[in-house]
Amino acid sequence: MKNETLAPVVISSNDLLAQWQGHRSLTRRVIEAFPEDKLFSYSVGGMRPFSELALEMIHMAVPSVAGIITGEWKTFGESEAEEKPTTKAELLKLWDESTEKLNELFPQIKIERFQEVEKAFGQYEGTNHALIFYCIDNEIHHRGQGYVYLRTLDIEPPFFWERG
Amino acid sequence: MKNETLAPVVISSNDLLAQWQGHRSLTRRVIEAFPEDKLFSYSVGGMRPFSELALEMIHMAVPSVAGIITGEWKTFGESEAEEKPTTKAELLKLWDESTEKLNELFPQIKIERFQEVEKAFGQYEGTNHALIFYCIDNEIHHRGQGYVYLRTLDIEPPFFWERG
Repeated sequence: MKNETLAPVVISSNDLLAQWQGHRSLTRRVIEAFPEDKLFSYSVGGMRPFSELALEMIHMAVPSVAGIITGEWKTFGESEAEEKPTTKAELLKLWDESTEKLNELFPQIKIERFQEVEKAFGQYEGTNHALIFYCIDNEIHHRGQGYVYLRTLDIEPPFFWERG
Repeated sequence: MKNETLAPVVISSNDLLAQWQGHRSLTRRVIEAFPEDKLFSYSVGGMRPFSELALEMIHMAVPSVAGIITGEWKTFGESEAEEKPTTKAELLKLWDESTEKLNELFPQIKIERFQEVEKAFGQYEGTNHALIFYCIDNEIHHRGQGYVYLRTLDIEPPFFWERG
């Protein structure tokens, strides 16, 4: 465990990955909770449908971690420009590919990289830990909106505190 | 800075407080964005009005940090049971009191406490860092719902990425 230190820490790199994947597991269940057509068409208050919000999460996750590892950044969304899922199964497939790739890549982030400042995607300057929290927080933010979409469709969303 | 170590870390205690207060600053602006009456009465999909969601955040924040510092827990919501604001000004006053109290208390959390497991409020078992993330994540989750409320009221919410 090269990313773990013996001195006490707020969170380890492994903790942070577990925290993120716990949220991603919940978001996956929110995607599943949408009826197929509503996932791609329904929204409230003129916002984007949940498929678009989930796709944004996918476009942020692996490219952020890859950029932190390599220090090389593509323009945001560039590498995924061709993949636009049109069914729930396709969206979930992309989601699951991200899940596996994150598990593979995240432990490769050298511990000192978390505190370094980088211009992510060539335009967002900040520490690398702030970028990862931005990915997680943006997911929670949009997923919370998905909860409202589901409620207005009379569908009970999964429990917020269940992350398994 | 007794909570800082010289070895590289994912985030320091100070980083985590700054991350939380950045979110709390944004949430404060979301409270402000609601018209007075809508803050206490309006919701979408049968959910709670934003005043109730904000009050839940207030009830979680300082009591969680106080419990982590002392290892002593009241029942959730107990100490705040009497304070139920009925105006935006009263709610913001409670919010600002929490902000100050968090700034005062958070640096008192001994670094080794973050990884210790505790039964928070006598019922939620987990690491103390997970409890703090739960407070932050719950705030982001419900604030995202507040964004939908505002959109359906034709009110532009503050930018998600502005935390100052």
